[in-house]
Amino acid sequence: MTQYKIPNATVKRLPLYHRYFQFLHDSNKQKISSTELADAVQVDSATIRRDFSYFGSLGKRGYGYEVEPMLEFFQKLLNQDQTSNVGLVGVGNLGNALLNYNFSQTNNIRIVAAFDNNPAIIGNEVNGVLVYSIDEVRDQLIKQKIDVVILSVPVRSAQPVADKLVEAGVKGILNFTPLRISTPTKVRVHNVDLANELQTLIYFLDNC
Amino acid sequence: MTQYKIPNATVKRLPLYHRYFQFLHDSNKQKISSTELADAVQVDSATIRRDFSYFGSLGKRGYGYEVEPMLEFFQKLLNQDQTSNVGLVGVGNLGNALLNYNFSQTNNIRIVAAFDNNPAIIGNEVNGVLVYSIDEVRDQLIKQKIDVVILSVPVRSAQPVADKLVEAGVKGILNFTPLRISTPTKVRVHNVDLANELQTLIYFLDNC
Repeated sequence: MTQYKIPNATVKRLPLYHRYFQFLHDSNKQKISSTELADAVQVDSATIRRDFSYFGSLGKRGYGYEVEPMLEFFQKLLNQDQTSNVGLVGVGNLGNALLNYNFSQTNNIRIVAAFDNNPAIIGNEVNGVLVYSIDEVRDQLIKQKIDVVILSVPVRSAQPVADKLVEAGVKGILNFTPLRISTPTKVRVHNVDLANELQTLIYFLDNC
Repeated sequence: MTQYKIPNATVKRLPLYHRYFQFLHDSNKQKISSTELADAVQVDSATIRRDFSYFGSLGKRGYGYEVEPMLEFFQKLLNQDQTSNVGLVGVGNLGNALLNYNFSQTNNIRIVAAFDNNPAIIGNEVNGVLVYSIDEVRDQLIKQKIDVVILSVPVRSAQPVADKLVEAGVKGILNFTPLRISTPTKVRVHNVDLANELQTLIYFLDNC
């Protein structure tokens, strides 16, 4: 889509911009000033301008942004015209919560299969999603075109389950366990480390 | 503790370093090379050296790191000698999972009070944590010395509940709702946006 490599920090803000233009569109707003945008998404306007500059000329100086074309732009950029099928391994407390989390409220993301090794819950449905045996992960990834899997297993199972996912051909793992899992470089891992988030916040309060 | 301002990216890696030295200590390891450390925490060694340089001379070039003093250093830095009391508002699926999440496994963080507005669950205990009425939030924050609150309410309640927390004197909010809440600058907000994390990962798979 673009010949420049877009910085990670910019990529992480794209869903935020997309969501806000969706919100404006749903509220029948046609235009927004760059100040209003900065306030709403809580990113300073210099950063927003730099982020947008990676994608050519979005918006006009001193005029702000037209909602409709901006929304279309971000939808296309983020593949919002396609639904992404996602899997989840580990239907404990957190896995259950994530299965009940409304990812599709703001994104075209759907959890379509869950996996566990506990016979007592295999075959159950959680929020309409069937829980398969972990042994079926390879078949289901292929059958349901799942590239990305959420990992919410206990920490002791994190690496063996990650190995199984790699074998099964997964391309991306969203890792909710506190372990930094090892995977081949072709498999992308993002970590959501809840204790880390909380501790970082507390550190900032104490020191900044 | 130091006269330089430490970059946010460094601060976010501190709990990771701390946790790994804790792990080494628990495994009776006495020393680790900088290559092993880099592999284990999956941060390249140049970044680790830069991170550590903000805190003076940790480790010796060509020698690696002694586990015991490094662990003590990070414990002190991250206030691990004190327990941090944390509150949680919104005992739905996600709130429940967070109450059952073992934050103290790797950190001295304890959720000591939960809040909700649903009479059916007020007075219940979840994983040993009492659920109070949201109207008691001010009293409990003072009584239990809570500075930080996890926000896991439905999105429509995010801003009104955040306002209530600010009134009650909260200093930090870990916001799990997809809304970017507005607070006075003295209140620090960190966002954990689950749909955003998933979408960013998918974007990288498609484009990088």
